[in-house]
Amino acid sequence: MKFSIAKPDANIISKLNEKINLKTKPLGSLGLLEAIALKIGTIQQTLNPTLVAPHIVVFAADHGIAQAGVSAYPQEVTYQMVQNFVNQGAAINVFSQQHNIQLKIVDAGVNHDFEGTMQIINAKVNHGTRNFLKEAAMTSEELEECFEHACTLVDNIQSSGCNIIGFGEMGIGNTSAAAVLMSLLLDLPIEDCVGRGTGLDNEQLQHKTNILQKAIDNHKNAIKTPMDVLKTFGGFEIAMICAGMLRAAEHGMVVLVDGFIASAAYLCARAIHSNMDDYAIYCHQSDEKGHRLLLEKLQAEPILKLGMRLGEGTGCAIAYPIIQSAIVFLNEMASFESAGVSKRG
Amino acid sequence: MKFSIAKPDANIISKLNEKINLKTKPLGSLGLLEAIALKIGTIQQTLNPTLVAPHIVVFAADHGIAQAGVSAYPQEVTYQMVQNFVNQGAAINVFSQQHNIQLKIVDAGVNHDFEGTMQIINAKVNHGTRNFLKEAAMTSEELEECFEHACTLVDNIQSSGCNIIGFGEMGIGNTSAAAVLMSLLLDLPIEDCVGRGTGLDNEQLQHKTNILQKAIDNHKNAIKTPMDVLKTFGGFEIAMICAGMLRAAEHGMVVLVDGFIASAAYLCARAIHSNMDDYAIYCHQSDEKGHRLLLEKLQAEPILKLGMRLGEGTGCAIAYPIIQSAIVFLNEMASFESAGVSKRG
Repeated sequence: MKFSIAKPDANIISKLNEKINLKTKPLGSLGLLEAIALKIGTIQQTLNPTLVAPHIVVFAADHGIAQAGVSAYPQEVTYQMVQNFVNQGAAINVFSQQHNIQLKIVDAGVNHDFEGTMQIINAKVNHGTRNFLKEAAMTSEELEECFEHACTLVDNIQSSGCNIIGFGEMGIGNTSAAAVLMSLLLDLPIEDCVGRGTGLDNEQLQHKTNILQKAIDNHKNAIKTPMDVLKTFGGFEIAMICAGMLRAAEHGMVVLVDGFIASAAYLCARAIHSNMDDYAIYCHQSDEKGHRLLLEKLQAEPILKLGMRLGEGTGCAIAYPIIQSAIVFLNEMASFESAGVSKRG
Repeated sequence: MKFSIAKPDANIISKLNEKINLKTKPLGSLGLLEAIALKIGTIQQTLNPTLVAPHIVVFAADHGIAQAGVSAYPQEVTYQMVQNFVNQGAAINVFSQQHNIQLKIVDAGVNHDFEGTMQIINAKVNHGTRNFLKEAAMTSEELEECFEHACTLVDNIQSSGCNIIGFGEMGIGNTSAAAVLMSLLLDLPIEDCVGRGTGLDNEQLQHKTNILQKAIDNHKNAIKTPMDVLKTFGGFEIAMICAGMLRAAEHGMVVLVDGFIASAAYLCARAIHSNMDDYAIYCHQSDEKGHRLLLEKLQAEPILKLGMRLGEGTGCAIAYPIIQSAIVFLNEMASFESAGVSKRG
């Protein structure tokens, strides 16, 4: 599957900066809000950007590696949390509702058969991935299917008018998959990428690190491209986030990057198409150990550092009003001239 | 003027923590949001806290020290910005409107006579303070007047139903006043407290530092209490913020602490009454140099670090939806039991 992501025309940057600098405030005094306004104006190629029909899509899937005892929670929590999403009880529900963000829940490959009546988008590729300690997590066909599902979904959301989209995930075991992706795509030792996930103790953390190193060793000769990495170690939800981000960028949408797992998917996306970076906003720095380093390597400045480590797209939802603030100041603040305020001496 | 600020009963903390820990999320995974929920629940002595009729009050005043060339902007910018506030053109206007925060603009002592028809609360103590390089910035009577104005204003806001209040400021020269307050109240060298304000270059920064050191030397024998510090170096807006914070705490309101100048006022408030800390939420870390150190000394963890340095209460306004998120998760998320989700293994 090919993605055609345009490089936004940089000619508008000086005009956007001029507009920002004429606002009634000391130069640069809105900090990161100014950078966000500049980025979204550049993506949308306008001095008056808008945020329309924001969406967060949460992909849920199970992971074969969970069988290796790498998580503090049992695997059934994945489907139980999906039911919690549907019943509006999870963190992502209440934060999305707070900010009028439309939330879509997708079964990307949960190890459970949901009743057809539930409000879940069915994109189930399989009942969880295979255990990548022993074999590749998915087949090439399954990976392809993930990409097709995600693209169709993003196409539908985009045609409803949405121009800003965030991606979240749920999947017991998925910090393990994300840690391996990070290690391979950024060429870092696995121990710099592994964290406590939902709450491992020191001994369990060491076990997780050993297991992941062994898995990498088992597959290292078979991995040549980012797609190989995704197929061998990824989850269905991670592959769908990766494809969803690429498709959203292709549509010229603003792409919100959530925490550790979504960022690992993002690493795949930018390895597949280098213009991806022009469309991404980093919403928060997760408390999961590897995420800080991941963001540093991308030279990314996240909007929030709240010590959160929950996933589900919650970082995107909570950061959303800050992104709105960037648009609001650019569109609504007075200029020195219109307000009759003296400029600096 | 005496303030009677109750220490919130700590008995509720264990019950709040229990409620937080039973939510469908890994333990502690909402980071700072959990700490905010705990704090507001403790202030309000309830497991179901609410935020009602949020207000931001912006106090504006001029500073005699501005005559010593310590700011990049001319003094008339103070009154011009007040007019900009009234005309809804400033940053604090657009951010307050974004979040349905009621905004009050107060003339605490601007060196300009506003037309009576403008929507400004008149609490003018004088046409700016005196130049504290030469004499005390205000008289004891003027300081007392500041406290009376602020208390009356907060009483009125509280009786309208408000239970959460932020304080902002506008005043050319007020980073100089704030730097001296910080230096004296935290016993730090002035050079650790002085920053570039609205945009001084290196030479101007050195000049500002020298002037402020000289001012401190001139008055050091006359200063014994926090009220002496406030009277000698404060601004009318800083004194009113200090008193407003104390009165709001007395009413059991949540007090939002903005950036460098508001934090300097907060230092005075907590020096006057040590229970002040139980009511304060630190909204952001300003890019103004001294603020990071100030927050460190208070062991305060600010909600936002966006590299902003604008004042006006903008940090309070932009952080407000994050505070709402803390309340929303505490009140609306499902528990493990109600959602039928397994706890950790």
